[in-house]
Amino acid sequence: MPVVRVEPYGARVEVESGATLLEALARSGVRVASVCGGRGFCGKCRVLVTGGSSALSPPSRSESMLLGGDLGSGYRLACQARVHGDVAVYVPEESRESPGERVAAVDGYARPVRVAPPLRRVSLSLTPPSLSDWRSDEERLAEGLGRVLGGFEPPGLDVLRSLPRVARESSWSLEVVAWRGRVLSVEPGGSGRGTYAVAVDLGTSKLVAHLVDASRGVVVAKGFAENPQLAYGEDIMTRMDFASRSPGNLDLLRRVLVEGVNGLVARLRSSLGVRADEVYAFAFAGNTAMQHFLLGLDVSQLARAPYVAVTRRALEVRAADLGLEAGPGAVALVFPVIGGFVGGDAVADVLATGLHRRDYPAMLVDVGTNTEVVVGSGDRFLSGSAPSGPAFEGMQITFGMKAVSGAIDRVRVGEDGEVEYTTVGGARPRGICGSAMIDLVAELYRAGLLDARGRFRRDASTRRLRRGERGMEFVVAWAKETSIGRDIVFTEKDVEQVLLAKAAVSSAARTLMKMRGFKAEELEEVVVAGSFGSSLNVENALEIGLLPPVPPEKVWFAGNTAVGGAVLALVSEEALSELDEILSKVEFVEFAASPEWKAEFMNSLFIPYREPPSRLSR
Amino acid sequence: MPVVRVEPYGARVEVESGATLLEALARSGVRVASVCGGRGFCGKCRVLVTGGSSALSPPSRSESMLLGGDLGSGYRLACQARVHGDVAVYVPEESRESPGERVAAVDGYARPVRVAPPLRRVSLSLTPPSLSDWRSDEERLAEGLGRVLGGFEPPGLDVLRSLPRVARESSWSLEVVAWRGRVLSVEPGGSGRGTYAVAVDLGTSKLVAHLVDASRGVVVAKGFAENPQLAYGEDIMTRMDFASRSPGNLDLLRRVLVEGVNGLVARLRSSLGVRADEVYAFAFAGNTAMQHFLLGLDVSQLARAPYVAVTRRALEVRAADLGLEAGPGAVALVFPVIGGFVGGDAVADVLATGLHRRDYPAMLVDVGTNTEVVVGSGDRFLSGSAPSGPAFEGMQITFGMKAVSGAIDRVRVGEDGEVEYTTVGGARPRGICGSAMIDLVAELYRAGLLDARGRFRRDASTRRLRRGERGMEFVVAWAKETSIGRDIVFTEKDVEQVLLAKAAVSSAARTLMKMRGFKAEELEEVVVAGSFGSSLNVENALEIGLLPPVPPEKVWFAGNTAVGGAVLALVSEEALSELDEILSKVEFVEFAASPEWKAEFMNSLFIPYREPPSRLSR
Repeated sequence: MPVVRVEPYGARVEVESGATLLEALARSGVRVASVCGGRGFCGKCRVLVTGGSSALSPPSRSESMLLGGDLGSGYRLACQARVHGDVAVYVPEESRESPGERVAAVDGYARPVRVAPPLRRVSLSLTPPSLSDWRSDEERLAEGLGRVLGGFEPPGLDVLRSLPRVARESSWSLEVVAWRGRVLSVEPGGSGRGTYAVAVDLGTSKLVAHLVDASRGVVVAKGFAENPQLAYGEDIMTRMDFASRSPGNLDLLRRVLVEGVNGLVARLRSSLGVRADEVYAFAFAGNTAMQHFLLGLDVSQLARAPYVAVTRRALEVRAADLGLEAGPGAVALVFPVIGGFVGGDAVADVLATGLHRRDYPAMLVDVGTNTEVVVGSGDRFLSGSAPSGPAFEGMQITFGMKAVSGAIDRVRVGEDGEVEYTTVGGARPRGICGSAMIDLVAELYRAGLLDARGRFRRDASTRRLRRGERGMEFVVAWAKETSIGRDIVFTEKDVEQVLLAKAAVSSAARTLMKMRGFKAEELEEVVVAGSFGSSLNVENALEIGLLPPVPPEKVWFAGNTAVGGAVLALVSEEALSELDEILSKVEFVEFAASPEWKAEFMNSLFIPYREPPSRLSR
Repeated sequence: MPVVRVEPYGARVEVESGATLLEALARSGVRVASVCGGRGFCGKCRVLVTGGSSALSPPSRSESMLLGGDLGSGYRLACQARVHGDVAVYVPEESRESPGERVAAVDGYARPVRVAPPLRRVSLSLTPPSLSDWRSDEERLAEGLGRVLGGFEPPGLDVLRSLPRVARESSWSLEVVAWRGRVLSVEPGGSGRGTYAVAVDLGTSKLVAHLVDASRGVVVAKGFAENPQLAYGEDIMTRMDFASRSPGNLDLLRRVLVEGVNGLVARLRSSLGVRADEVYAFAFAGNTAMQHFLLGLDVSQLARAPYVAVTRRALEVRAADLGLEAGPGAVALVFPVIGGFVGGDAVADVLATGLHRRDYPAMLVDVGTNTEVVVGSGDRFLSGSAPSGPAFEGMQITFGMKAVSGAIDRVRVGEDGEVEYTTVGGARPRGICGSAMIDLVAELYRAGLLDARGRFRRDASTRRLRRGERGMEFVVAWAKETSIGRDIVFTEKDVEQVLLAKAAVSSAARTLMKMRGFKAEELEEVVVAGSFGSSLNVENALEIGLLPPVPPEKVWFAGNTAVGGAVLALVSEEALSELDEILSKVEFVEFAASPEWKAEFMNSLFIPYREPPSRLSR
């Protein structure tokens, strides 16, 4: 079998003849950036072939397109090149994936609520049966619990099976763990056992979990992990496509996700010495597709128009039925979906920020591969999801990358066209992340180097603006400043990608505002949710029209409100019951069916926005 | 290893030295009567040792007591005699157990109801999603089903997992199987699949099942099987004792019971070519202990005072959670318990007969090892359970046996003391079953051979009355008439056992009547439920005071109303909803705590009854 040597790791791996370099790298344990799931679309898995290049398959069409001149320098796309003999490759820094480095937005805003968790451990001292009080064990429990909780919902078979033994062994001094009044578990009194719950943000690329001590209603540990589904496609569409191909694929995605959650929760637990059987509840908030994956629900109908969910209800299922490690009676709450891709994460955003209780015009924007926007006030809010794409995550941008170490995250362009930038972790730059892309478009436009249509001015006189291999490009960092030894440039094509993404966000916001009858100047609050916000320059976001034209002081960053909302549902039964209120107040708008949105999208491709022709000229 | 030869079967079986003859017989496939579960109490497992008697353990204390002079004739109790060398035994006819012979009360009365099964298969043609109708699959289903059923209860995860695929593969022409409006299964339209439910009477010794075609609301097959738990004790107390010893024992009893049900249902299904996955619902009615066994609920607290059930609710659980073979979403309804041993079978009796809707004083008596009595009218009924014991089933009676082939089932005693009798199946007699015992007590009393205390008149002049080995006895059948070659006698001790059993039934009825304020002459209806009734002579039952003193025409036999009630719950959603009404109307009375019942019991030991001393003489 052919042997592949992988540098700079010194790894050697045998593969079947015909395997791709990506497969070889995966087998050697080296993680390579692969945004598109190995389908030759993203061009992120570039490797330098340092030996045996003739043992590789000839360059594919997508390699010719995506590598251009680099192909001649020995670069190949690992997902395209197939191995037919011994080969040596070098994985350049920008192609390496090191998840641990990722800046985690583990935390987010959650409004203050009255702490009264729906998960409760109740100590009960019950009267033992006698000939004059022959009621069943369950009735005895119901009476005792009713006194404390003001209600009783009958338990399942598991609890009934353990009740008689536990009650008598503990001489009727019991501890009952209940979720919203429903008995999950019956345990001997004085057990000293903890009562924990876990809030999880099911992100497309990142899982964020907060461990909640339900006895106090506080978060005691936070953590995140890469979503292990990344191995099956970085974007959700790729994964849905994969899952749609067979029930086995769907189940595979479900299983790796659940394993990821179990692993993350185990890490949080072990940091505090909490056992798995002390966890009795979960609250999950994620986009519609991620929630479907967790539940093992089909996504093929969700992947194509009209993008239909299997269910929109808030589901409460047995944690064991999902494969989650927890106590025997543990429950898993999955947040409801408003519609289409306005999923449980958007509901959690609203719950965390309390947007649904604003009595003045307010907006929430959660920018991601899909951007969710919620606009409204009082009793009526509108929501929609626009495919902003993964540009802000680094995909489809020449030197795009996530906000990890070495990413240029803030850029200033002077009037002379000269550049100042900062990087994540202060490392030598190796790419450009989302916030810097917005800065670049805004700053280049402000400096007069870019016109309103996003085209570089051919007449500008700065050495940084030049004609590159793929059209006009602006040099953000010279090769000597970088860790990759190449000029980091921002091309006209990159500008186009950023404007496409921006237009999706902007048109969503504008369409919903128009439908709700709000003018931008009426908006009193714009909440930017999600990890994107952390390094975003508000002025620049407003400059390019990403956010509606409001004074900057009306914009604030709420962070990861998806996990924040899930936590709220676990620490406050009152907040949890607001899910119904949110569903009744927030309507879903399907943009795919909206000519208005399409028009707004076209106008939003301009910087900041092309005002539509006046009524008269129509 | 010692070899045991078993005649008249010609079987040979090797056993470990020290094994009992009962174990040897079981291994050889020969079924022997063992009422007490091999504990040396019942004396039913008599075998004649025809060779190698010195290779057996010496006679035990219970053998000396129960076999008396027969011990000298070579008889042993199979459960007591241990094998230490080669032995030959003969199993006499009266010790043989042949379950297939048992007369089955497979059927029972069920009042006419409006047929509208809670289990329904509904054909739906739903509008496919579009960009202007992006509702979730579940909402689409809810709307369609709501139109037909007038309501919708959300389905579980299993249905949600299959819904998208089934809906699209069938172009939104679906069949939905629902139980009380809750979706159990979603299937492609035009499947031609059947929709069946099974009503089961969980009897202590017999399982009776009716297969219901829910599409028409009719019973299409009936059958019964021996309760396989019989191997662990013929009476329920022995089984509860066994189950209380370890969770493993409890689970064993649960498993053999479920296997028994599965086997019985499979037999009914196969007679009609119905597949297991066409069964979507079960309704189970049994005594409190049997229902606990089915559900895998602890019985140790039920086996001793104050005889407490784990739950009294009607439970609806997933059939799969109980181990039942059925369609994936199938549901199992277990009837509610009124209290103590007044279990789901008594509730089913009431439902089947409609007793709870009588507006005149009425009584229901279900005679078994435990006898349940329900008395009342209008809005208030009282119920209780008395330990009538297994005498009527043949236990503790010298020549007692079940109502199987060869059992004397009716007896007349002339004034001259001469006897006429009939047997089950017209076979030569080999024992006496319950109805004949009642006849004997009544007829001997009427003929002046028995006094009111149940003692034979020493001065009576009939050759059939004689002093036997164990006191006075009456010869029912001479040896030459029988198939066992011995005189079949009815002893004074047997009379005492019958009167003890009678007293339990009578005192239960009298106590409840007194508590409810009814006099016997006010009773307008006495329903006798259970298999016992089929051969019972009403006049004689009244003569000995088994039933309260009412004119015979007010007594009627309803047969197996336990299965009848379970069938009603499956063919009529209205009847099913009456379970709550029954629970609210019928109160439970615990006799173990009642001095009144004890006094009535003492008075009921007389034939027919000893009127208590008048108030003045107290």
